Amino acid sequence: MKLQLALDSSNSQEAKRILEKVSDLVDIVEVGTPLLMKEGVKVVTEIKSAYPQLEVLADLKIMDAGDIEASIGFEAGADIVTVLGVAHDVTIGRAVNQARTLSKKVMIDLIAVSDVRARIDQIDAIAPDYCCVHTAFDLQDHGMDPLREIQLVQSALKRTQMAVAGGINPGILPDILAYHPAVVIVGGFITNHPEPRQAALQIKELLA
Amino acid sequence: MKLQLALDSSNSQEAKRILEKVSDLVDIVEVGTPLLMKEGVKVVTEIKSAYPQLEVLADLKIMDAGDIEASIGFEAGADIVTVLGVAHDVTIGRAVNQARTLSKKVMIDLIAVSDVRARIDQIDAIAPDYCCVHTAFDLQDHGMDPLREIQLVQSALKRTQMAVAGGINPGILPDILAYHPAVVIVGGFITNHPEPRQAALQIKELLA
Repeated sequence: MKLQLALDSSNSQEAKRILEKVSDLVDIVEVGTPLLMKEGVKVVTEIKSAYPQLEVLADLKIMDAGDIEASIGFEAGADIVTVLGVAHDVTIGRAVNQARTLSKKVMIDLIAVSDVRARIDQIDAIAPDYCCVHTAFDLQDHGMDPLREIQLVQSALKRTQMAVAGGINPGILPDILAYHPAVVIVGGFITNHPEPRQAALQIKELLA
Repeated sequence: MKLQLALDSSNSQEAKRILEKVSDLVDIVEVGTPLLMKEGVKVVTEIKSAYPQLEVLADLKIMDAGDIEASIGFEAGADIVTVLGVAHDVTIGRAVNQARTLSKKVMIDLIAVSDVRARIDQIDAIAPDYCCVHTAFDLQDHGMDPLREIQLVQSALKRTQMAVAGGINPGILPDILAYHPAVVIVGGFITNHPEPRQAALQIKELLA
């Protein structure tokens, strides 16, 4: 099981300061969407060059022009780019083909997919590397419970591995681990913690 | 009726070269998603400062954290940011609130909305400034006809103005104009034309 750290600040100095404290504890470092919007993919290049041993994920949330936009991430040094599960199949397929050509990976983000049961089979047929159950940040205040969706996705995926994201902390993590995700994505619990390293160690302990 | 030029190249020098040739012919200049991914919103700042008389739209395709991500665009100088119509209502609402606070605008992109008829009423109720009928680039080879969707959207919108995008050229434009969009978005026909200014003049003539 891999631990992915989501750098969700739009301030690159702050994001890099946190990464420095926990880089030996994580497997994948995610350059978050706000940071990519602010700085573009040069942050991906900088982080990959500073931490070549880590996998770097660019959370581009690709929605159109799958091949062109995936290439922008991959050429900047990303090992993984994200594509939205609500995108058309042809967009997902073009990003996955681009990843195969360059020996890179695609993670599908299920955010705002309305009929997960139906969509997950269509996505699995395109065979991206990862499919991420994602509770939209904007909905976390609204009491959505991701566990039911995690169970649904895990039981449906045949060719694609499951990742889980959205407000993960040590309280909810044991329930999630029961479904054996390939990747656990943690953002705010580590990045907003007064002691990010201590927070990451708490997560690591539960993953062991 | 406003003409929006979509700068869809990921090369900022090339995008700026084209804009220079046609800036007096367009009302809104769109910094496209691939360019934003590559360079971040600093391109928005550069273009707004070079052409303060133009409205600048940042095609951020916001999907989550509506207030935070809209702010990134607005603070960089964008007059308009895009939010995906497939995003949750709360995400759209937060971006629209942010726009109201800063006297800026939001354009909703209907790309990949599966049930346009049902969704358009929900979006119109949130009252963003524009709602864009958008044929995904990846689907334009697949013979999708946007006219039916344009008619549907135009008849449903009450509080929001309609924009139209996706492979618009002088051949299809008269059919689109029959539905009185507030904004016509043209990309490739101008940006890939051997004489971009001549292409823009051709479009302008039809809009007059």
